[in-house]
Amino acid sequence: MTSLRRKQGFLIVISGPSGAGKNTVVNELGQRLDKIRYSVSATTRPPGPGEVDGVHYNFVTCEKFQEMQEAGELLEWATVYGNSYGTPREFIERTTTRGYDVILDIDIQGARQVRSRWPAGIFVYLMPPSMGELWKRIRTRGRDSADAISTRFKLAWDELEAVFDYDYVVVNSDLDEAVDSLRAIIVAERSKVARCDLLGFIKNLKGQTV
Amino acid sequence: MTSLRRKQGFLIVISGPSGAGKNTVVNELGQRLDKIRYSVSATTRPPGPGEVDGVHYNFVTCEKFQEMQEAGELLEWATVYGNSYGTPREFIERTTTRGYDVILDIDIQGARQVRSRWPAGIFVYLMPPSMGELWKRIRTRGRDSADAISTRFKLAWDELEAVFDYDYVVVNSDLDEAVDSLRAIIVAERSKVARCDLLGFIKNLKGQTV
Repeated sequence: MTSLRRKQGFLIVISGPSGAGKNTVVNELGQRLDKIRYSVSATTRPPGPGEVDGVHYNFVTCEKFQEMQEAGELLEWATVYGNSYGTPREFIERTTTRGYDVILDIDIQGARQVRSRWPAGIFVYLMPPSMGELWKRIRTRGRDSADAISTRFKLAWDELEAVFDYDYVVVNSDLDEAVDSLRAIIVAERSKVARCDLLGFIKNLKGQTV
Repeated sequence: MTSLRRKQGFLIVISGPSGAGKNTVVNELGQRLDKIRYSVSATTRPPGPGEVDGVHYNFVTCEKFQEMQEAGELLEWATVYGNSYGTPREFIERTTTRGYDVILDIDIQGARQVRSRWPAGIFVYLMPPSMGELWKRIRTRGRDSADAISTRFKLAWDELEAVFDYDYVVVNSDLDEAVDSLRAIIVAERSKVARCDLLGFIKNLKGQTV
């Protein structure tokens, strides 16, 4: 039996407004696919309880983070409450070269930066099923002030039109269906002729004795 | 709940060498998807037992067939043992306009004709898992002479390189996996931003009371 190999993996960026359900969907997605890795962010904040360097985050000093930024080693970055977060290019290069696909779940602004620095990525917009559901999800996170909630909601409202910059759209009304669609997108992208080593495959086929 | 509508359906052409397993895969595929129709061929041959006009084939006279050909109403055609077969354009136009996707399973030469007349189609190449398996499948059809079998096998051998003209490739080593990949390709294509009525969707979302 000859197996069809891919030339390399790809980066799949899953984005959408706050409250669209990116985290839940993306965590479930990893359970349903082989040959997949999650992108690991670099951050200047100290590790929280149970957080492992290189697994949950790459914990780096502020100097190191700035160095990475200046050397073009980050696909995107942002500062939240005084801590910097960014997506290292090197992990994605290394992992896709080894034939794995990398999932990156990130907000709209981050995705925009990633697109400019890694245009070969596949960009999926996760769409909330209704504004009521979006409002509920933002409100019940329980970690934001009333002001922060209404700012988030306003931003999500404005970010809906960003979908037109994406390759695919998935409406997150039912978790199982949304994950199934995301899985389908990855399986389909893996099946693209341009991504597969078909010269090698056909050579092997024809070399077999019948 | 707002649902995301597509602007229209698409034509998905599933092709591959004789013996790749097109029929089996395509029949199973229809069971796993909604909003799908099979293309119905026009033919000049008389109906066989149990064959229903408009369901299994459109049975037409030779004059009518030639008329359709000359009027550009066929996406492809071929003559086999003195009978003509062709794919009517009108059914695909009408069905995709109504939001259904149309599956057409066809040989490599037919697919080539369809591509030139319906370039918006999605073209999937079904690849045999090995030449031994291909040989076995061609040989055990039980409807061909030894000469016909070896001609078919030689043609299949030569047609492997046609895969480079296709969008997607699926290796048919395991029926269930092959059907799953085909289903994934259709689900993914349906999720493309360019195919969805997102202006309408977002307008509906924003018109909801929260």
